[in-house]
Amino acid sequence: MSFSQLLSETIRKKGNPVLVGLDPRFDSLPMSCRSAALDVADAFERFCSAIIDIVAPLVPAVKPQAAFFEQYGAAGMTALQNVIRYARQKGLLVIFDGKRNDIGSTAEAYAAGILGADSAWGADALTVSPYLGDDSIEPFVKTAVQRNAGVYILVKTSNVGGKMLQDLAVEGKPIYRRVAEYVEQLARRTEGSVGAVVGATWAEQLAELRQVMPSAPLLVPGYGAQGGTAKDVVKAFHPDGSGALINNSRGIIFAHLKEPFKSQFGESRWQDAVCAATEQMIRELRSTMVGK
Amino acid sequence: MSFSQLLSETIRKKGNPVLVGLDPRFDSLPMSCRSAALDVADAFERFCSAIIDIVAPLVPAVKPQAAFFEQYGAAGMTALQNVIRYARQKGLLVIFDGKRNDIGSTAEAYAAGILGADSAWGADALTVSPYLGDDSIEPFVKTAVQRNAGVYILVKTSNVGGKMLQDLAVEGKPIYRRVAEYVEQLARRTEGSVGAVVGATWAEQLAELRQVMPSAPLLVPGYGAQGGTAKDVVKAFHPDGSGALINNSRGIIFAHLKEPFKSQFGESRWQDAVCAATEQMIRELRSTMVGK
Repeated sequence: MSFSQLLSETIRKKGNPVLVGLDPRFDSLPMSCRSAALDVADAFERFCSAIIDIVAPLVPAVKPQAAFFEQYGAAGMTALQNVIRYARQKGLLVIFDGKRNDIGSTAEAYAAGILGADSAWGADALTVSPYLGDDSIEPFVKTAVQRNAGVYILVKTSNVGGKMLQDLAVEGKPIYRRVAEYVEQLARRTEGSVGAVVGATWAEQLAELRQVMPSAPLLVPGYGAQGGTAKDVVKAFHPDGSGALINNSRGIIFAHLKEPFKSQFGESRWQDAVCAATEQMIRELRSTMVGK
Repeated sequence: MSFSQLLSETIRKKGNPVLVGLDPRFDSLPMSCRSAALDVADAFERFCSAIIDIVAPLVPAVKPQAAFFEQYGAAGMTALQNVIRYARQKGLLVIFDGKRNDIGSTAEAYAAGILGADSAWGADALTVSPYLGDDSIEPFVKTAVQRNAGVYILVKTSNVGGKMLQDLAVEGKPIYRRVAEYVEQLARRTEGSVGAVVGATWAEQLAELRQVMPSAPLLVPGYGAQGGTAKDVVKAFHPDGSGALINNSRGIIFAHLKEPFKSQFGESRWQDAVCAATEQMIRELRSTMVGK
């Protein structure tokens, strides 16, 4: 089954497009995860596994952020590998958020290592940065198609500074739109194995980019802590409600640090806070989709 | 000592600007490294350690390419960590070639983990991709300054496809030049802790970009296997011969696979081939520098 089919089927089965970001930060972990752990990497693995146990019945996918694991060296990367394996065992799609890229033959190494169930990392999809151009992206696309995996190319990122290059206009057309047109070509050629990252913080461009890339699955970060709302992301979807995963990281995994969940559950019931925050996000998205 | 001072002093001490790229590929490794190893990651560690033993007395720096290690999962990343540690023990500067980047708080995690002697990875410098813009680059710059480390931002990459975005002209000025102007500002502010990646395959732009970025150390890939020559890279240097590291990966580490070294040494004397190829590149660069 191609990535695109697997993605659609998993979203349909779970009945929502929530993508839980696994961005562990040691200082934000519940004390119970910190004190039981041998080291930071072990704490990350315990924490993320507990999150997976909670969200696996609820959502279609998780997105571990490689940076937080890589920060702790090879031990952190071992934890990441175990977390990816565990998430897949639990039936979740896994998007490796690495924003990797390099020139052709080196891009092949990243793609071969990260994408596909039989690769070292075993991820279903990977985020890729486009600055190095088409011949750096092709190896990811080729590997993704061969292995029924997906590639999400950065188009319009959620941060303000993204404007610096992405919003520069070339003959009246911003760079992000040029990248989007390129992504649409790849998405059409691969029947949806190639998608795009478009931030929830740019509601207007999200609508524009959904139009420009009708064939591309979208990965939409910036929901929750970064300010994106259900109303902002509604334009990311096709009329039938398909076509996008909406990411929330801190707002779900560290829900116990934030009201109303902080007062309601406190740190001792942090798992209940994660569950409640996930269910709340699902409800928010559903109510907006109904209104669409 | 700041990265810039350490870089200058190390180049001066070794008397050349050769940067040996550690890009291990299992199929190209000498049989002796393959057969003695427990697994691919172990073979990479043995091979790279042997390369380090050979080149440490000759050159100032090595550049491990993260992709080739990451391809083999956490085991590969353990090998990378060991290779970096060993290279530093041998007095080499280590540039972690990861082309990493992400939005602000995540960029902080990459920077904290990779840069500085006391970080998990312990690298002297890191390559960074600019598509996410200034607020994604600042955390790398800040950490680099605090830890006496360096950041090399991709400006004009050595591959042909790099043109797709990098050569687009905005109001008559290509993107790569805009990124270069931004790098120059950072380089000036940090007294050379921020540099740029500019491919040896673009001799004309290399000259232009050396002018645009007088304060930035350059990392010049594309020498050798990708077609760049000593004559092409001469423009990367300041008149006194400082200002750039010239990278060669396959041309040095797999010298035993290529004439004239293949016939001269064969696989059984692959270490001699590495040594001869390194010395040849040093001679090529020196003779061009004299002519400058």
